[in-house]
Amino acid sequence: MLIQNIQYMTIGENGKWQVKSGDILVRENRIENIGDFSHDEPEETVDGKGMLALPGLVNGHQHTPMSLLRCYSDDVPLMTWLNKKMLPVEMKMNDEDRYSGAMISMAEMIKSGTTSYADMYIGMDTIGEAAVTTGIRAVIARGLIAMDDDYEGRLKEASDVVDRWHGKGNGRITTMIAPHSPYMCPPEFLKAAVKLSEAKNVPMHIHLAETKDEERMILEKYKMRPVEYLKSAGVFERPVLLAHGVHFNDEDFKTLEKVQGGIIHNPVSNAKLGCGISDVKRLIEAGVKVGLGTDGPASASSLDLFFEMKAASWFQKLKYEDAASLSAHDVLTMATQNGADILGIGEDVGSLTIGKKADIILMDMNKLHLTPSHEPANLLVYSATGQDVDTVIIDGKMVMRGRELTMIDEEKVMAEAKDRTKQLLARV
Amino acid sequence: MLIQNIQYMTIGENGKWQVKSGDILVRENRIENIGDFSHDEPEETVDGKGMLALPGLVNGHQHTPMSLLRCYSDDVPLMTWLNKKMLPVEMKMNDEDRYSGAMISMAEMIKSGTTSYADMYIGMDTIGEAAVTTGIRAVIARGLIAMDDDYEGRLKEASDVVDRWHGKGNGRITTMIAPHSPYMCPPEFLKAAVKLSEAKNVPMHIHLAETKDEERMILEKYKMRPVEYLKSAGVFERPVLLAHGVHFNDEDFKTLEKVQGGIIHNPVSNAKLGCGISDVKRLIEAGVKVGLGTDGPASASSLDLFFEMKAASWFQKLKYEDAASLSAHDVLTMATQNGADILGIGEDVGSLTIGKKADIILMDMNKLHLTPSHEPANLLVYSATGQDVDTVIIDGKMVMRGRELTMIDEEKVMAEAKDRTKQLLARV
Repeated sequence: MLIQNIQYMTIGENGKWQVKSGDILVRENRIENIGDFSHDEPEETVDGKGMLALPGLVNGHQHTPMSLLRCYSDDVPLMTWLNKKMLPVEMKMNDEDRYSGAMISMAEMIKSGTTSYADMYIGMDTIGEAAVTTGIRAVIARGLIAMDDDYEGRLKEASDVVDRWHGKGNGRITTMIAPHSPYMCPPEFLKAAVKLSEAKNVPMHIHLAETKDEERMILEKYKMRPVEYLKSAGVFERPVLLAHGVHFNDEDFKTLEKVQGGIIHNPVSNAKLGCGISDVKRLIEAGVKVGLGTDGPASASSLDLFFEMKAASWFQKLKYEDAASLSAHDVLTMATQNGADILGIGEDVGSLTIGKKADIILMDMNKLHLTPSHEPANLLVYSATGQDVDTVIIDGKMVMRGRELTMIDEEKVMAEAKDRTKQLLARV
Repeated sequence: MLIQNIQYMTIGENGKWQVKSGDILVRENRIENIGDFSHDEPEETVDGKGMLALPGLVNGHQHTPMSLLRCYSDDVPLMTWLNKKMLPVEMKMNDEDRYSGAMISMAEMIKSGTTSYADMYIGMDTIGEAAVTTGIRAVIARGLIAMDDDYEGRLKEASDVVDRWHGKGNGRITTMIAPHSPYMCPPEFLKAAVKLSEAKNVPMHIHLAETKDEERMILEKYKMRPVEYLKSAGVFERPVLLAHGVHFNDEDFKTLEKVQGGIIHNPVSNAKLGCGISDVKRLIEAGVKVGLGTDGPASASSLDLFFEMKAASWFQKLKYEDAASLSAHDVLTMATQNGADILGIGEDVGSLTIGKKADIILMDMNKLHLTPSHEPANLLVYSATGQDVDTVIIDGKMVMRGRELTMIDEEKVMAEAKDRTKQLLARV
């Protein structure tokens, strides 16, 4: 596939995103060449005129089946939301529901420019199948919760997910080990998860420091802060995706400096649930890698990472009362290469680089709200939305063209989601 | 015009938005009937299936020509932004530039569901002309700045805008008197503006309490806080649109309780410029009417009020660390009826009510990111964007249908904005 006469964005040596012009040649599932080069005419050409190519966006923290509960409960305190609204319905979800929720989530993500994402949930076979079907790049993990004492049974399920799914879908699917959170995993369970991650040689995925309640709970239970608790269990000896990271103290920041992996910041979910603003500026200054995620659609209400990019920048500017905090350039890096690195796939995706896998999105910049163009990085972060994405290529395959999904029957996916949601709620 | 088989939203007695079904009959420029009624088949019918009708959104604070400087300067401190970047270019703007900027701003607003808006700028004849051309409902005012001692000359210009434009465009255009801000208007100038507003019988429009610098400056200069300063000049004896309102103390809140008009909250601009979060929750509790605005496109970077709705709710939830703060229902009211009231046009527009002028938007709800639908108000505020607006009717006239603008040549407006911006920057 040859994308012709396109403007495309790469990160320069100063960390700023630059616009260049040229062609992008995709062979099999990789970027074979990019820029100004000579080439034979390949079979498939894509006209890039008026478009701006970016690396596909990376949504670093998601619970895809929860799209069935989008806007099911908003504007209520977090514990009401979780215990009275989410859990009672989630307990009644079956595999068909989860598949339907995963399908509509993936369709929405692709349609708004996300090409890779990380998922922590239960019933991961249905999610793996949805990822194979939709063509998205997915890093999936069974969320481990100590609901009973059957730690072995749970760990076996997590292990099976790795065995069954790691490398599937032409390598698009990889896996993690995901103990849910400090408050859902007692020490022995958490330590066993660390060992499993080591044995399987896959990274970990865990919620951390999302709420003040979590901090209180862990302090009370273990006389440690959440970060210390994870450290004591050996979590930081593994590459780890830490979701949220809102409540840290000085010592926590010091501990996190050495983490392999990084923090996935979910600004919209953290705001909507009243959790607070993660100190992204300080994390970055401490050398911690920070990526972006939406969290589940039941809290964020949208899977459009362009909203998260805006929110991330706005929130740091508010936190520091400084318009210079967290520039659009930094946010773009968070939403692409940083996310890919934290998901453990940063050598393969996250930038438009020769040899990397071809995860490319084309933005249609010929829009009123993107005119005139002084600084494309700023326009992308502050003015664009996922609906400005015209074309999406994942693993060298065209999965959206002219806003038409090629692998997904959108109407069918929507009808099924409506139908399954109706049935699901009738069972609650 | 008959909009058939549509779902539409109205505010119930409990202040919550409700979805009803029926038809909407528009005769001339007014809503003649709504709901379940018998009617002859009128000439023009609109199929409302799959759509959700809302009152058109109200953008309560704008400087339309500044769209030429969208994303021209981001991520720098406010004073750098204003003095080094904005003002030097604005000084070189001519009428053609302002017309071009106003046209693209109005096109962007209509395309994202805004039907009424308030503008404070200079060269208001060009903006009035653009409003006549595009079909938008506009409340325009000459921004009064004491650059020299020619107060009389400035006031004459403001007065002329009222004389020339009030009631034009079939009544779509109304006017205000707009002393720029406490820091740009000395007492005598401000008092003269109050008098002019009284003489002309139009409301006032002024920036207030946007930054801590403003507070310091006014305290130093007049030994008063900005709110006291406006009060001492008689501003609160007039109906007044107060833009921003970020920095208030207890006494300010008490003074504001009695204000006729209200506060236009511009959350995105306030965040992007690092100004802070207006205490909207407390304002509402004090009985102050609060509407929403984008501020100029050079700070907000977008004129999509759906972003402002999200930001307004997210910011209050963060400010209070409480997910229950500022519900989607309250935000929708801010973006419609409250805004209209503050603009002084609330008896004519702001809700879908028999007898009101027909400013109606139809949202296409058949989208992945709006599926399933548990609570339409939440979906609109937390999940939708301006790009989900399918149809826009202003003053009974179809100005957008199937996302095609009927009064504006979009390609031409974009080409002109690009061209004028290039020439403008060449002159700086």
